[in-house]
Amino acid sequence: MVGGGRDAFIGAVHRIAARLDDQYELVAGCFSSSPEKALASAADLGVPRAYASFADMAAREARRKDGIEAVAIVTPNHMHAPVAMQFLKRGIHVICDKPLTATLPEAKRLARAAEASGVIFALTHNYTGYPMIRHARALAQSGALGEIRVVQVEYAQDWLAEPIEQSGQKQADWRTDPARTGAGGSTGDIGTHAFNLAGFVTGLELEELAADLQRFVPGRRVDDNGHVMLRYKGGARGMLWCSQVATGNENALRLRVYGTKAGIEWAQEDPNYLWFTPLGQPRQRITRNGPGAGPEAARVSRIPSGHPEGYLEGFANIYAEAARAIIARRDGAAADPAITFPGLREGLEGVAFVDACVRSSARNGAWVKPAL
Amino acid sequence: MVGGGRDAFIGAVHRIAARLDDQYELVAGCFSSSPEKALASAADLGVPRAYASFADMAAREARRKDGIEAVAIVTPNHMHAPVAMQFLKRGIHVICDKPLTATLPEAKRLARAAEASGVIFALTHNYTGYPMIRHARALAQSGALGEIRVVQVEYAQDWLAEPIEQSGQKQADWRTDPARTGAGGSTGDIGTHAFNLAGFVTGLELEELAADLQRFVPGRRVDDNGHVMLRYKGGARGMLWCSQVATGNENALRLRVYGTKAGIEWAQEDPNYLWFTPLGQPRQRITRNGPGAGPEAARVSRIPSGHPEGYLEGFANIYAEAARAIIARRDGAAADPAITFPGLREGLEGVAFVDACVRSSARNGAWVKPAL
Amino acid sequence: MVGGGRDAFIGAVHRIAARLDDQYELVAGCFSSSPEKALASAADLGVPRAYASFADMAAREARRKDGIEAVAIVTPNHMHAPVAMQFLKRGIHVICDKPLTATLPEAKRLARAAEASGVIFALTHNYTGYPMIRHARALAQSGALGEIRVVQVEYAQDWLAEPIEQSGQKQADWRTDPARTGAGGSTGDIGTHAFNLAGFVTGLELEELAADLQRFVPGRRVDDNGHVMLRYKGGARGMLWCSQVATGNENALRLRVYGTKAGIEWAQEDPNYLWFTPLGQPRQRITRNGPGAGPEAARVSRIPSGHPEGYLEGFANIYAEAARAIIARRDGAAADPAITFPGLREGLEGVAFVDACVRSSARNGAWVKPAL
Amino acid sequence: MVGGGRDAFIGAVHRIAARLDDQYELVAGCFSSSPEKALASAADLGVPRAYASFADMAAREARRKDGIEAVAIVTPNHMHAPVAMQFLKRGIHVICDKPLTATLPEAKRLARAAEASGVIFALTHNYTGYPMIRHARALAQSGALGEIRVVQVEYAQDWLAEPIEQSGQKQADWRTDPARTGAGGSTGDIGTHAFNLAGFVTGLELEELAADLQRFVPGRRVDDNGHVMLRYKGGARGMLWCSQVATGNENALRLRVYGTKAGIEWAQEDPNYLWFTPLGQPRQRITRNGPGAGPEAARVSRIPSGHPEGYLEGFANIYAEAARAIIARRDGAAADPAITFPGLREGLEGVAFVDACVRSSARNGAWVKPAL
Repeated sequence: MVGGGRDAFIGAVHRIAARLDDQYELVAGCFSSSPEKALASAADLGVPRAYASFADMAAREARRKDGIEAVAIVTPNHMHAPVAMQFLKRGIHVICDKPLTATLPEAKRLARAAEASGVIFALTHNYTGYPMIRHARALAQSGALGEIRVVQVEYAQDWLAEPIEQSGQKQADWRTDPARTGAGGSTGDIGTHAFNLAGFVTGLELEELAADLQRFVPGRRVDDNGHVMLRYKGGARGMLWCSQVATGNENALRLRVYGTKAGIEWAQEDPNYLWFTPLGQPRQRITRNGPGAGPEAARVSRIPSGHPEGYLEGFANIYAEAARAIIARRDGAAADPAITFPGLREGLEGVAFVDACVRSSARNGAWVKPAL
Repeated sequence: MVGGGRDAFIGAVHRIAARLDDQYELVAGCFSSSPEKALASAADLGVPRAYASFADMAAREARRKDGIEAVAIVTPNHMHAPVAMQFLKRGIHVICDKPLTATLPEAKRLARAAEASGVIFALTHNYTGYPMIRHARALAQSGALGEIRVVQVEYAQDWLAEPIEQSGQKQADWRTDPARTGAGGSTGDIGTHAFNLAGFVTGLELEELAADLQRFVPGRRVDDNGHVMLRYKGGARGMLWCSQVATGNENALRLRVYGTKAGIEWAQEDPNYLWFTPLGQPRQRITRNGPGAGPEAARVSRIPSGHPEGYLEGFANIYAEAARAIIARRDGAAADPAITFPGLREGLEGVAFVDACVRSSARNGAWVKPAL
Repeated sequence: MVGGGRDAFIGAVHRIAARLDDQYELVAGCFSSSPEKALASAADLGVPRAYASFADMAAREARRKDGIEAVAIVTPNHMHAPVAMQFLKRGIHVICDKPLTATLPEAKRLARAAEASGVIFALTHNYTGYPMIRHARALAQSGALGEIRVVQVEYAQDWLAEPIEQSGQKQADWRTDPARTGAGGSTGDIGTHAFNLAGFVTGLELEELAADLQRFVPGRRVDDNGHVMLRYKGGARGMLWCSQVATGNENALRLRVYGTKAGIEWAQEDPNYLWFTPLGQPRQRITRNGPGAGPEAARVSRIPSGHPEGYLEGFANIYAEAARAIIARRDGAAADPAITFPGLREGLEGVAFVDACVRSSARNGAWVKPAL
Repeated sequence: MVGGGRDAFIGAVHRIAARLDDQYELVAGCFSSSPEKALASAADLGVPRAYASFADMAAREARRKDGIEAVAIVTPNHMHAPVAMQFLKRGIHVICDKPLTATLPEAKRLARAAEASGVIFALTHNYTGYPMIRHARALAQSGALGEIRVVQVEYAQDWLAEPIEQSGQKQADWRTDPARTGAGGSTGDIGTHAFNLAGFVTGLELEELAADLQRFVPGRRVDDNGHVMLRYKGGARGMLWCSQVATGNENALRLRVYGTKAGIEWAQEDPNYLWFTPLGQPRQRITRNGPGAGPEAARVSRIPSGHPEGYLEGFANIYAEAARAIIARRDGAAADPAITFPGLREGLEGVAFVDACVRSSARNGAWVKPAL
């Protein structure tokens, strides 16, 4: 693991996610850009091989017979690419937090390098790991929704409703700093999740978007609220709202998709339910592993319906899927075609989405195409 | 009453709403543009004074000593102005369904004439009659929300998901005919409600909007889905979604407002609850007439909390408020300043909203200002 | 109307309910046991024929050619029988609030007299008027639930969580006075509603019950919380909970029925939804007048799905059904077999339920049979 | 681990729960009563030290320097005591699934032996591990609820609505066999959870109960539905419903507690919310780690509010708490007084609850006291 030491948030999530299904062992880490903190964090975590530099880690792990097979990158966004490059060029698989990078050119360079290297590259758009999201995607793919007309996706939080970055809150500090987080604030931090989720479920590709981004909190250096209209290829239309100043919202990612035959609704805070309404029929509440939930949800579920799984389990599904791919690669076997996890393409699309939002908003909401 | 005969939908609603609080008596009507149907409908309803022509009705009622004090206009949109003109020029108060008119020039003419006449003019943006909406407005006015940053408002239905206007469904027929409904379809029919509701609660005035309107159903002549970004005067921003093709939605009008101090959420289908979250505090469920609901809600409530009131009661509140104003006028008394109902200004704003949506969409989503 | 003057609660509800569907006109009343208050209330309400004595009202109305056809009795419980007797013996139909009477012997006498008189007698177990309850009953009758095994019914309030009767709150005063309310407190006031609702929906008849009643509030003279186990004829079992001290509950009447084929759940505070789950299928949300709601619900609905109807509409359905019966009687026509409203049988069963609860609790929860 | 091999349900849950917080390593197991299945299951799981007999496992692990510190017992109920005895007499700590044993005498013997041995004994009443349940308990302990009056607790499932034990479903087979599950069916399997949860949150002790148990499914050998009235010491009253035939319910454990000052409501299927209503104030939705949730919830939470934790996390909290106690014991340190997990006392109370239900029901619902 690179990043994720003391004061970090997402590092601990990755560690639990990796551990949950017993497919990974954490044996080496460079847990901070500060060498002292890196070593101290390794000691905290009882990780045997502690490194003060990620480049050193990559080099030395690559040389060990028992070196790591995969690295988890949980640094601020601007460090994703530099870190990933060190590992993938040595054939070490990468599990990287989102967004892929802080800038689009960097994303393209990373994607090219990663593809050239042949490593497995998983991007933790973790919400795609939720079983009911898998079921939603299966419904869309099966034609049960009919032709998709409208997508409504939103991701609302309120933790940045006040300028807490000015009083040193570490997460707020880097996530509102364009140098580290990228040009998009809420669009990059959570808008990418929303955009990715909509695409994952519907299979729709973005044609163009029009964005109106705001910086509501005085002194904020990146957007903290974004309104985006979406035009997908083939005629579907969407709206995307992301906000970190929506007072009263904790982590309210919500997706609604309406097709000619049926509509679906899902909310991350109540993830074990998918609401499914065929046109002219009553609304159904499909539960994870319950009646009507199909095999796509079941293969990423651990326990029976009525026993709620949550965020960590969904996150762990990304790790478990990547593990299946890594094991197949190691064994020289064909990977199970059911294995599904976000990777470079989704990473590129996400960074291009942020880039397009920023460009559109700078041009007063003009329609712009993703610069892929 | 003018309109609202056999096959009509909203006429019956108006009649119940008028009756609920025992402030109106229905004594005269021209219930259809077809003279036969008009007379037959009057007979169905047991209304003593039946007219085959609304102009005739206005003229004759105005001459009677016991003539009507107020007329309810529940015709298709394009007839609102012609009918209203006949009555208001004779000093008969008007309660008119929304939108005010089918076109903006017509709306302006009607507004001028109505103002000149001095009659009381109530527009049945009935959702403003819901007690919890009154409470939401009071919260905004009191400063409890702080400075408003973000408005999310939506109105989703699915009854036009298929081209039912082509098989003669009467409501679909006129509501998708630009000659009768106006240039906006979903924007005029339900978008105006959503727009009005947001303004009613927040007190915000529209600066400009950018709209992307769609006609999803083959052969449809007006929009059946609309995506709109809003910029309010003073810096607040909003999104508005209206749809009549959102499969699985019945009458899902929903308003969410986020300010610097608190956020609120309300859904028309569960109207007795207002969700109120002060920043950094737990979400509260305020119930109609329950703890925390203020006098603004109580004055338009009839029964205790836990005893749900619904659509008809909210609608009746518009009638009751108008009755209070009419009685005060009749008595030569000053009207209670608490009396609140939508009228000409809201009507003009609504028609200007539709007009702006249509203009913006025609210009590929350019920002346009309401042409008030 | 008898009762329902100043300070009353349920009288106003009855008046709105009677008015909603335009089937009744309120022309006479004795609105209080206090002659002054009776006359003042009539003046408040603009009711033309005001009486200071209900016996006088019955006598004089019976003599008028245009005398009332039906009387609504909305007095405290102990006065239901004396008042009803005066009217029914003169052939005036009765619409009476529940419970039928304050004591079981009185209930039996009243039922005998009413049957002998031949008048139409409607008891306002108003919750049976909710459309989704009608649909629930239709499901049970059709066999869609299979054989019913378990009934869970509850009615929770908190308005008597403190001894407000001791500070003169009028509703609390009589509803906690055994002389006026009867031997049961919460059991009589709301337990009867819960018991009635379960029977209405399921068609099950009580075999015996075991009750544990409490008086939690110091000084209270009747039960304010009741726990009851039910054994129905044929083998179904149930639990009933009624409480007026369940802090945080407003008017939480809730019914759940589980059969071999399907289960249903309904909550009075969200009355437009019926949750229906066939065994092994996803839970469905049936909405009033929406897909899957049958004709039994539609005939007591006024407006489309998504437009919530509430308590007053449900209450009005009892009045409307009674009106249909009264009109058929007046016309000498056969009443529509679909007409459904609670009457003497339900009234007797309700008072017998309270009586059984009180007897069982006095015998430390022994099983007792209703003394019908 | 003893039990939990192929075809088992709860074994896999225990393994994930043990792993989640990285405090346990699974190094030895006797995963089945069938030696072949035991060894095959160990191979499946990659567990190094596989045993064909639990007695052998206990003996040999106790002799190893690196022998296990604790054993997880996940067998059918009748084997809890025999297995636990082997380990605890050798000083190996025990984490045992609930109920403690299949019979009350056995429970008493086991409890005496375990106490004598001095080992740490954790019983996986896992629902007490949910953070919002910890917060609920803290509210009760702090006096925020006032004096508790009413407890409503229920646990509804439908997986035994049909006689699936007759077609060889393994879970149904032993859970409906009195020889293995004990005299109580639904009461033992899930009623004990409900009873335990109510006691855990409220701190109330049972005085006596009256039970009406049913066997609805033809041929069933134990209760599949139970209705229980509870009298707690000190005057609080409760109702408990457990059912495995409640069509449409998956794992619907729900607790509601009403005190003089406030009421709380919690549902296992939506475990991140606690509904808290102080008398005369609006209902509040407290979220895990959100505003208003106290330190008792936070210490057993891993991730921020809005990121749902579920069943596995709650279960893991029991393991984590036990680990803290074991580590303190190993270190000779005083255990943190905040450590909270169910153990022998709760186990005894649970088995006594089942015993009392069965005795009461056999005596036609007479009040009986727990035979502790």
